[in-house]
Amino acid sequence: MSLRTIEEHLAAILATLRPTDVIEVTLVEALGRTLAQPAVAQVDLPGFANSAMDGYAVRAEDCAGASESAPVELPVVGDIPAGDTRSLRLEPGTTWRIMTGAPLPDGADAIVPVELSDGGTQTARLRLAPEAGLHVRSRGEDVRAGEEILPAGVVLNPGRLALLAAANVPQVPVHRAPTVAVISTGDELQDAGSVLGHGQIVDSNSLMLTTLVLAAGATPLRLPRARDDGDSLRARLAEAAAAADLVLTTGGVSMGAYDTVKEVLSGIGTVTFAKVAMRPGMPQGHGVIGDQERPIITLPGNPLSAMVSFHVFVRPALAALQGQPVDGRSWRAGAVPARAGAGWRSVSGKTEFTRVRLADGEAWPATGQGSHMVGALADANAFAIVGPETTEVSAGDEVHCIRLLGT
Amino acid sequence: MSLRTIEEHLAAILATLRPTDVIEVTLVEALGRTLAQPAVAQVDLPGFANSAMDGYAVRAEDCAGASESAPVELPVVGDIPAGDTRSLRLEPGTTWRIMTGAPLPDGADAIVPVELSDGGTQTARLRLAPEAGLHVRSRGEDVRAGEEILPAGVVLNPGRLALLAAANVPQVPVHRAPTVAVISTGDELQDAGSVLGHGQIVDSNSLMLTTLVLAAGATPLRLPRARDDGDSLRARLAEAAAAADLVLTTGGVSMGAYDTVKEVLSGIGTVTFAKVAMRPGMPQGHGVIGDQERPIITLPGNPLSAMVSFHVFVRPALAALQGQPVDGRSWRAGAVPARAGAGWRSVSGKTEFTRVRLADGEAWPATGQGSHMVGALADANAFAIVGPETTEVSAGDEVHCIRLLGT
Repeated sequence: MSLRTIEEHLAAILATLRPTDVIEVTLVEALGRTLAQPAVAQVDLPGFANSAMDGYAVRAEDCAGASESAPVELPVVGDIPAGDTRSLRLEPGTTWRIMTGAPLPDGADAIVPVELSDGGTQTARLRLAPEAGLHVRSRGEDVRAGEEILPAGVVLNPGRLALLAAANVPQVPVHRAPTVAVISTGDELQDAGSVLGHGQIVDSNSLMLTTLVLAAGATPLRLPRARDDGDSLRARLAEAAAAADLVLTTGGVSMGAYDTVKEVLSGIGTVTFAKVAMRPGMPQGHGVIGDQERPIITLPGNPLSAMVSFHVFVRPALAALQGQPVDGRSWRAGAVPARAGAGWRSVSGKTEFTRVRLADGEAWPATGQGSHMVGALADANAFAIVGPETTEVSAGDEVHCIRLLGT
Repeated sequence: MSLRTIEEHLAAILATLRPTDVIEVTLVEALGRTLAQPAVAQVDLPGFANSAMDGYAVRAEDCAGASESAPVELPVVGDIPAGDTRSLRLEPGTTWRIMTGAPLPDGADAIVPVELSDGGTQTARLRLAPEAGLHVRSRGEDVRAGEEILPAGVVLNPGRLALLAAANVPQVPVHRAPTVAVISTGDELQDAGSVLGHGQIVDSNSLMLTTLVLAAGATPLRLPRARDDGDSLRARLAEAAAAADLVLTTGGVSMGAYDTVKEVLSGIGTVTFAKVAMRPGMPQGHGVIGDQERPIITLPGNPLSAMVSFHVFVRPALAALQGQPVDGRSWRAGAVPARAGAGWRSVSGKTEFTRVRLADGEAWPATGQGSHMVGALADANAFAIVGPETTEVSAGDEVHCIRLLGT
């Protein structure tokens, strides 16, 4: 059986997705959201000519010939602080003391820095003959009103939000944060804090996926666990499909005999199961369920495989659901190069994701790479990507690493 | 006037901080919080011996002598799926078919992988003589009950939360998320969406700081703006000191004549103003105000300086408020090495923070490095740290970069 590439599987997932609807939100609410339409400046930036230095606002011609040895002396009309909103005028042959960022008075065309003066408050001796425009930030030199300042599809971070505010844009159209249903299946699963019977384990996956969804800026919908029977799972999936933009299941899709998830899904949707050329995380599934054709991604049940799969498939899916430009190659987007701090072996024919501790450009493999070992996940902050053709990473090799969400 | 180093200033800020109180929260609520006490596993991990492969559970001695040419044939008692909670027993001379992760039946001590069998369901022909323990994950081999699994002071990310859940820890003591008051001052400031009069600008800083606080996982308290008079600012500061764990102000601390913030603060607290050897962001202040000695950090008023200052001083302060181990050098923690994509000049005698676009290990300087230019902030995702002794960065040089929050 030939394996799917990661790119093929991700592209197939993306083909099932439609962006969430667009809502208008205030700028604080827009943090982490994706802009749905280009944003246009409502004002010039800066909005008025202002001083780039503490100094004296002058008409350049009034300082003609001034120098260290032959200062020009001008009467000081007053002070203009930053934030001054008075409409002021510079009369020929006079000067205003002016602060950095303060509006230039009408008629002024240059600034003499305070360092080239005697600092006078009644009269000032200026030791520079500035060219017109010196130390003046002109209106609109950063951004012009009407100019597109951000394209659709960008994620709104604090710097971009500050730009929108400065450009006098009070609210923006963004894609609603996707709601992601998380369903774990398995009769052996119990809540943390339970007394565990023989063979029972705590359901750590649904917690992990819920917090990964949160860390990715989406809205988790953590449903009660499904039991290992068709009716229980069918009910959960119906609930999820009705309420969520994307449904995640974990567990129940091993290649063995006990695959309730597969059986149920084949009845209520079009879901493809595939072996993907990656380790961990080979058994994957995706498709749509219910009348609304709600997209679903079925993740493997072991914690490490689920963690890797979330970063490789679910994270780009969340980007696509918010109108960001992604394609099958986007799982590598944002990977950072690092040097292997130590060597390790890797599997041939599959892309291997090795848990590493990334620090100061070095990637150190975590101990306990067995996919059942959650202990080592607690120390890792990235997965190193080791390509299918590489069977051994040596200390000093360059490896690209996917930083884990929330670390 | 000699300049303070960044380390000196940060250490002075940290000396004013006390960790927030400790609360017990569920694991979902604990995402991004800092663990206040070491966490101890409540169960062994794995909690029971289980199979590392799909295959057959056997007593090793029953397969003695088995090989490719001379298989051993054993009757198959039944199947053990992952998640099986029955208490099962392996009688000598028999085998159970077993799935990866499924509990070993009592009496079994090894697994023969399915690949080394005929896959039989009634009887199985096994072509391997395993040593005892082969492909068995033993109880507690990952974590032992009673073992410390996470130390105090770590930030709880999805991987660590999954570990806590798996170890049957349902809730944890964490430091309460700090509440951070944000106060901007200036009569010229208006809300986004206003009609701007002469000299008026939109207050983008308080939005930027509010969203940076959110992106850092703390709780912002955005207060109405203070006007440029003592009474207005005094009232805001009293409100902030009563409600917040940390107070941030922006603006009003230039070295010029119009420093309402300085005047007011000297009356209600112990606040030190300093020039720090950095660009942008030289004028800094910090101290405590009010009867509760609430810590305050006064940030410069221009957007880029405020952005840099937040990452260099406020972010480590938020870590300290949550009991994380930080000191004056922690402003560099998490900086990543990169290669300069192009060259740029830098100032001598100060650490310069150059806005860069960091992609695939290369740092490209953003255009418009003037500290008033918010436009270029929208494209930057990191600040490159250029040390005080470096006046020129050449293409290909290694530079360490601080990734911007929320990018």
